[in-house]
Amino acid sequence: MSARGFVASGVACGIKESGAPDLALVATADGRPVPAAAVFTSNLAPAAPVQVSRAHLEATGGFASAVVINSGNANAATGAAGREQAEQTCATVAEGLGCRPEEVLVCSTGLIGIPLPFAALQSGIAPLLAARHASGFPDAALAMMTTDMSPKDVLRSGEGFVVRGIAKGAAMLAPNMATMLAVLTTDAGSSPAELRAALRAAVAHSFNDLSVDGATSTNDTVIALAAGGAGARPALAGVMADVCAELATLMADGAEGATKRARIRVTGAASVTDAGRAARKVAESQLVQCSLYGADPYWGRIVSELGSSGAAFDPDRVSIAYGGVEVCRAGVACDRDDGALAAAMAARNVEITADLGLGDGTAVVTFTDLSPEYIAENMRTS
Amino acid sequence: MSARGFVASGVACGIKESGAPDLALVATADGRPVPAAAVFTSNLAPAAPVQVSRAHLEATGGFASAVVINSGNANAATGAAGREQAEQTCATVAEGLGCRPEEVLVCSTGLIGIPLPFAALQSGIAPLLAARHASGFPDAALAMMTTDMSPKDVLRSGEGFVVRGIAKGAAMLAPNMATMLAVLTTDAGSSPAELRAALRAAVAHSFNDLSVDGATSTNDTVIALAAGGAGARPALAGVMADVCAELATLMADGAEGATKRARIRVTGAASVTDAGRAARKVAESQLVQCSLYGADPYWGRIVSELGSSGAAFDPDRVSIAYGGVEVCRAGVACDRDDGALAAAMAARNVEITADLGLGDGTAVVTFTDLSPEYIAENMRTS
Repeated sequence: MSARGFVASGVACGIKESGAPDLALVATADGRPVPAAAVFTSNLAPAAPVQVSRAHLEATGGFASAVVINSGNANAATGAAGREQAEQTCATVAEGLGCRPEEVLVCSTGLIGIPLPFAALQSGIAPLLAARHASGFPDAALAMMTTDMSPKDVLRSGEGFVVRGIAKGAAMLAPNMATMLAVLTTDAGSSPAELRAALRAAVAHSFNDLSVDGATSTNDTVIALAAGGAGARPALAGVMADVCAELATLMADGAEGATKRARIRVTGAASVTDAGRAARKVAESQLVQCSLYGADPYWGRIVSELGSSGAAFDPDRVSIAYGGVEVCRAGVACDRDDGALAAAMAARNVEITADLGLGDGTAVVTFTDLSPEYIAENMRTS
Repeated sequence: MSARGFVASGVACGIKESGAPDLALVATADGRPVPAAAVFTSNLAPAAPVQVSRAHLEATGGFASAVVINSGNANAATGAAGREQAEQTCATVAEGLGCRPEEVLVCSTGLIGIPLPFAALQSGIAPLLAARHASGFPDAALAMMTTDMSPKDVLRSGEGFVVRGIAKGAAMLAPNMATMLAVLTTDAGSSPAELRAALRAAVAHSFNDLSVDGATSTNDTVIALAAGGAGARPALAGVMADVCAELATLMADGAEGATKRARIRVTGAASVTDAGRAARKVAESQLVQCSLYGADPYWGRIVSELGSSGAAFDPDRVSIAYGGVEVCRAGVACDRDDGALAAAMAARNVEITADLGLGDGTAVVTFTDLSPEYIAENMRTS
């Protein structure tokens, strides 16, 4: 089941040497533009498709008919030629759909700094358009993948409408091949401004609360399209948030090299900003990630990261627990249940809580462990 | 050869289960206080010895007779009991030297959050004092070690004076056992204020330009003592800077898990602050570190880190080179000498330059690669 009014497809056009699917499309069924919103990477070296999609959304005031996505090459650090090719890709898709070029958005994911195999991409657009169908979303999700272990495709229903999200992640998770991409479609109605607000809120508490190595890629993009067939739905924002949260969890679970997924929940911070800063510092710590891989409840590293996070911190007030088993109270080691602790550390998913004892600020960040497989995956691009 | 007026020693007192040396002393030969300066960690969860040493230096206005150092336990996250034990350690050493307790500084290095084996430490102080000798610096350097592969002991001469530095590092390099510590002694004369200024400058361009995993430990401490026997020497600051730079290089070379040492030099930044921010972001990137381990000149990751560093950045102006072999010019791949590039990447030490093309800001940060051995070293504390 998909959001009414959308079609999708995925084909292999030859960008990937393996011959795997590498070109995906999500479009309105009739080719007409609908309200669209996007959140792009904050990286100051945005890939060509990010630059082009951002300009297109500005030109249309927040409308789009389609998103075309290639995997296998990021089209980043490719200069004016890369921008021209991203524009041309949109124009070719627009011609096929019967819409304007600026009503097409474009995403790329793969290696940075390598010219786009443009002839291959262009040759794939006709078959891509021909294959588009309401049941084509799994094919599109497959064609977005780089080093993902499985496609990511989530459907959630509200009353009278659905939101479907497909994604590749990656992101900060498997960044060898760069980036995370996600496309959300809904048959609920929404203005561009409402859709933008809903998407920003959804991203803030899902993809932006996810970290593996702290990298902010050149290509990260999340796009939402609202076809409106089901009429305006005030519950849309909540369902979009659920879809993004679920996609983010799938990304953490599927990150290669990761043997564990962890959540650090910081409570009692002096402010929400401080809580976020502290949680992110812990999540991005190579040492905390190594301890997680080793199933070692070495909470001293968490204290050290909290103390250097920039958040207000009183070492005599902090308490830390793994899977609900307290290991540090008022800043020092406390009596603990070693059996329960070992079980918590051995689990696939580890919940870590750190209460700073200073205020009401709370934040949660999801991350993964650091394993030798992560290094093996990322040490060479070829 | 040592700085005139100082003695040192190192013994095994039983903190380390292995029986290896774990207690070190550096002191004035006559037990009388001399000008002293220190730079401590900025971590808001400073270890007990950091808190005590900072208070002692404030109480004396910048004078000290001795530094006592234990390895094998960080005495961090140990609360009031840890502070009391650090104070008591200073008092016991002071009694033996015939100085006041606040004229003794104390450092600890090892695991965080575990009560200090205080009886063992106290029992070691008498033999430690008895062993002190002008030729005892190598023993002291040995007793400071945690996971270091070799002791770090550097001597540099100025005209008529010397500076000797012993260190353990660690620091951000091999932080399993926490922290970096360094003690500099000189027979040059200096006021406490002059010594403080010289030490801060020396640390800023040595230990603070060194990064492996971005951690700022609970115990990091660098102490300088100036006995003055050689009279006031304006060249002191320069020689201290040389000693710190050499110790920092030894730390990068000796970091376990590291197979390569790299330097990232950022030039052409809009400001020195921007240059430092950009260089540090590259140095702390797990992905850049993985590429370094794999000897892979994947410069796209460097562009991505520069673009997300917070520094002003124009992707169309950046140039990047490995070992002088340019791989990216004006933001895109350029013709390159593949043979020379392969040789540069295969070297033990890799020099990376990134010119941002925006201004005159320059900064250099030294770092290491990320290897499976780093994870093996840090995944479990026991």
